[in-house]
Amino acid sequence: ASRLDRAAPGQAEKQPEIKLWSTKDLDLESRGLRFEPPANKLAVHLAPPSLRDNTSDLARLVRALRHEHFISEVCVDYPVLPTLGQTLRFGDWIATATVADTRLEALTEGCCEPGKQAVRLLRLEPGDTSDRAVVLALDIGTTTIWGQLVDINRHEVLATASDYNAQISLGEDVITRIVHSEKQEGLEQLQAAVVRTANGVLDRLLAEAGMKRDEVMQVVAAGNTTMIHLFLGIPPRSIREAPYVPAVSLVPPLPAAEIGLNFPSYVHLYCLPSVASYVGGDTVSGVLGAGFYCEPETTLYVDLGTNGEIVLGNSEWLASTSCSGGPAFEGGGVRCGVRAMPGAIVQFRVDPSSCRHMVVTIGQRPAVGICGVGLIGIIAELYTKGILEPNGKFRTDLPRDRIRSRNGINEYVVVDAANTGTGADVVLTEADIENVMRAKAATYAGIMTLLDSVNLTVHDLSRVIISGGLGDFLELEPCIRIGLLPDLPRERFRYIGNGSLLGARLVAVSTDMLEDAKQLAQKITYIELVENQLFLDNYMSAMSFPHTNGQSFPSVRRSAPSAPMILAG
Amino acid sequence: ASRLDRAAPGQAEKQPEIKLWSTKDLDLESRGLRFEPPANKLAVHLAPPSLRDNTSDLARLVRALRHEHFISEVCVDYPVLPTLGQTLRFGDWIATATVADTRLEALTEGCCEPGKQAVRLLRLEPGDTSDRAVVLALDIGTTTIWGQLVDINRHEVLATASDYNAQISLGEDVITRIVHSEKQEGLEQLQAAVVRTANGVLDRLLAEAGMKRDEVMQVVAAGNTTMIHLFLGIPPRSIREAPYVPAVSLVPPLPAAEIGLNFPSYVHLYCLPSVASYVGGDTVSGVLGAGFYCEPETTLYVDLGTNGEIVLGNSEWLASTSCSGGPAFEGGGVRCGVRAMPGAIVQFRVDPSSCRHMVVTIGQRPAVGICGVGLIGIIAELYTKGILEPNGKFRTDLPRDRIRSRNGINEYVVVDAANTGTGADVVLTEADIENVMRAKAATYAGIMTLLDSVNLTVHDLSRVIISGGLGDFLELEPCIRIGLLPDLPRERFRYIGNGSLLGARLVAVSTDMLEDAKQLAQKITYIELVENQLFLDNYMSAMSFPHTNGQSFPSVRRSAPSAPMILAG
Repeated sequence: ASRLDRAAPGQAEKQPEIKLWSTKDLDLESRGLRFEPPANKLAVHLAPPSLRDNTSDLARLVRALRHEHFISEVCVDYPVLPTLGQTLRFGDWIATATVADTRLEALTEGCCEPGKQAVRLLRLEPGDTSDRAVVLALDIGTTTIWGQLVDINRHEVLATASDYNAQISLGEDVITRIVHSEKQEGLEQLQAAVVRTANGVLDRLLAEAGMKRDEVMQVVAAGNTTMIHLFLGIPPRSIREAPYVPAVSLVPPLPAAEIGLNFPSYVHLYCLPSVASYVGGDTVSGVLGAGFYCEPETTLYVDLGTNGEIVLGNSEWLASTSCSGGPAFEGGGVRCGVRAMPGAIVQFRVDPSSCRHMVVTIGQRPAVGICGVGLIGIIAELYTKGILEPNGKFRTDLPRDRIRSRNGINEYVVVDAANTGTGADVVLTEADIENVMRAKAATYAGIMTLLDSVNLTVHDLSRVIISGGLGDFLELEPCIRIGLLPDLPRERFRYIGNGSLLGARLVAVSTDMLEDAKQLAQKITYIELVENQLFLDNYMSAMSFPHTNGQSFPSVRRSAPSAPMILAG
Repeated sequence: ASRLDRAAPGQAEKQPEIKLWSTKDLDLESRGLRFEPPANKLAVHLAPPSLRDNTSDLARLVRALRHEHFISEVCVDYPVLPTLGQTLRFGDWIATATVADTRLEALTEGCCEPGKQAVRLLRLEPGDTSDRAVVLALDIGTTTIWGQLVDINRHEVLATASDYNAQISLGEDVITRIVHSEKQEGLEQLQAAVVRTANGVLDRLLAEAGMKRDEVMQVVAAGNTTMIHLFLGIPPRSIREAPYVPAVSLVPPLPAAEIGLNFPSYVHLYCLPSVASYVGGDTVSGVLGAGFYCEPETTLYVDLGTNGEIVLGNSEWLASTSCSGGPAFEGGGVRCGVRAMPGAIVQFRVDPSSCRHMVVTIGQRPAVGICGVGLIGIIAELYTKGILEPNGKFRTDLPRDRIRSRNGINEYVVVDAANTGTGADVVLTEADIENVMRAKAATYAGIMTLLDSVNLTVHDLSRVIISGGLGDFLELEPCIRIGLLPDLPRERFRYIGNGSLLGARLVAVSTDMLEDAKQLAQKITYIELVENQLFLDNYMSAMSFPHTNGQSFPSVRRSAPSAPMILAG
């Protein structure tokens, strides 16, 4: 089964404490769905023309698609025509048609009769090339862009890659980017930046998978509403002006080359639909992948990304909100923050008796920085061991070997320069901690407010699903210890990795999933938190580790050091 | 009624002898059809967004199309999206959508449920511009390209224009053009030439109608199979090689700009489907316009164009053939041949007693040449008055004032230089007459052979429909006198003008007509005349005026001059 329960990696001392889904999950069967990509390659075997059967090349091809692949309706894109005759003859009347399901072109409910197959012929190659076919899934994140290549024949992920979104230099969050987009050439700059990053990710994926560019049949992208507007070159202005409407929520399929993606013209781009201006296709994608919209149990879905989307509900109803906490969980806005890359710190322990540190990095490399998981882990450990106060300040009564002040800001040396991969200290500052505090408070307050809006409490939650590109090393315990996630029995939690990428990947291999996504986007209600007094109250209450109301986190116990420790490496 | 019976223009002495359809016929009602163009402009009135109704701009637009215009399914082309928000706000939430019927995109029978409206949104303009909407009908002839602009709101033809196809310099007929297309750059040259001519015709139409280029919503083109291949840049090679299959017969709609037509990207081009390599969309278009495919009477349809297509049948069955006679009927391959333009000779009389000539030209201008109608008329008159022998040679026993020899070829001075608009004599040579003889013999032999193939004779024909771009001045009597058309009671004949343009015009305003065209192209059987011995026999028998078997033309009487005439101007 591909919905594997994978133990968080780490040391012998660690217990598997959170169920992790495979980041290569392609299991449609357990979801009751067929493996049926929106685009496909179909090999056709034609009878050569004769004086008795002298129908045109195109009609002959259409006839073969009908008879060999049971397709009712065929549309054909013009670029196929000029080379059609040559392609059929060169391949000795065997050819491979790249086709897309035309039912997906409609923004409204299609009026195709059920059971009929309708396709658009996008490309024709001589011979049978159906064995070489991949689709690209993209997560267009505010901070990070992820991509995966999926082999359509082997039902497997061939390559995964990511990179920081080059838009970051034009604005850290979606609001500053919308502001930038309103400047002269601003939208063009933003679109060029994100497309440049996506093209770079694509190049790496192709190299890693050993596939050619023309073997990619289609692209499926998920992203928040603003990011999808910028990706497509659509002005996002109305998103930040009352009444906060996006230009598009359900995006029609379009040629990927039209927005500058480095593909031939026959490659089409599908985008996951969004719910509202601040609950985007990335969230719909995650909910789609997590699957609880089909199940009766009330589930909480929390995306630990830059924009903090939360969804609550079950197969009967779904409510959502957004509580932007900033990019801290992706290593953004943090002094030594990095993405989840080799050398990123993901685990951290202080032994109060020996006063020694233990640091685990991705790939066992010398530390180069702290990724989101590491950030949560270090803060949780420092708080638990009494080195960090509930207000996010370091204890000042401890010997200051590790804790020091630079430019008036206190910082903690996690790994000293002699032991890092960069030649500089890897530190955690009180400013970094405040960023994490704000992010976790916004998320937790969002959860509480959303629950309240439907008259539920955390104890009504059958399951909590955590999404985010934090990597395979996420641990649940630190998230609860810092008050990011509610203090519930641990077996109720699931981590699905990058939910946005998961859904994009599933849509890329399942027409039904894309249809589900359309319905899902319609079904999810959006709760606006701007100017919501309860949210503000909840937010202020959460501005402490784990919370100003300690009773909300009964399992979190702080072991204040009985005696002053000497913190040395 | 627009299916007017119009008298052939001319002199008081003339009787209306052939029923002429309006060259601006747009009458769908008498055909039992609705005026419903494949593309249309729909004005929409949107409720502005509010906090309570904050659906996206695109979803709001789609909602308006559904509610205001009862459209079930909406697809949207990408270029609409980047300007969508601004367009809606600039027009104060009133906008005009240019939409195309998506059911027409399928080459197979569509699987859209009956009664549902499915459209593709091609363009959105601010405000209500639905009043300004025209469609372009094109006849892409081997020799001549015709165009008409039709006002969608007023149901009228705004302008008509034509020009010689610039491909002529690269080859006179379809076979020489196919040969040329196989040379290096040959196809590109041919496509550029026909598109250049079409763009020129378009420019003149827009100027004449006082419309802007962006007010044209769509283009419908009819042409023979080879011409449509060349127009679309599709290699026609397989048309002239056994087993004579075209690359395409039913052409999917495509953006007109893709083939170089000078239009914005949202203007789509529809082509009439063809029956076979040598019975093209121009013939399907004419049969469609003539309407006899819906009626029980057995009808003969004859196209007097360069390629001489013939269709025979009724609502039960339809058979066709092609008997290329060359471009003589369009004034091609004739020394003083011109198109049906001002100054073209269309009528000619010799009074044997006074020995005087009477010449009628288009627009009463000084003669500039002889068009197809004039050619038939002059030959018929010279033959009837005994000046021309049945074998196509001038009588040599007459005084030679008018008849002279130049470079070894006998010629007849129709108008002397002093009375022409060119300053040169307008003459008719025996070589010209031989071209006409071959064209009429091929056509007549085609008719006889096609009738024979279904075991019928001319006397079984309830109606004969004549098509061709010969202009409003075509007279029936001369056509029968030279043996081009069978000698049947005159009331059975109808002239529909340019049938190819007629059908294209009707398709441009009727989705049903386009659907009919698809079915018609499937229904018409093609009879191959190449290597058909009966056709060759029929052809040889027809190489005389009116025919070697005079009994076939009982009404044609020759008034051989009783005494030598003096032929003087």
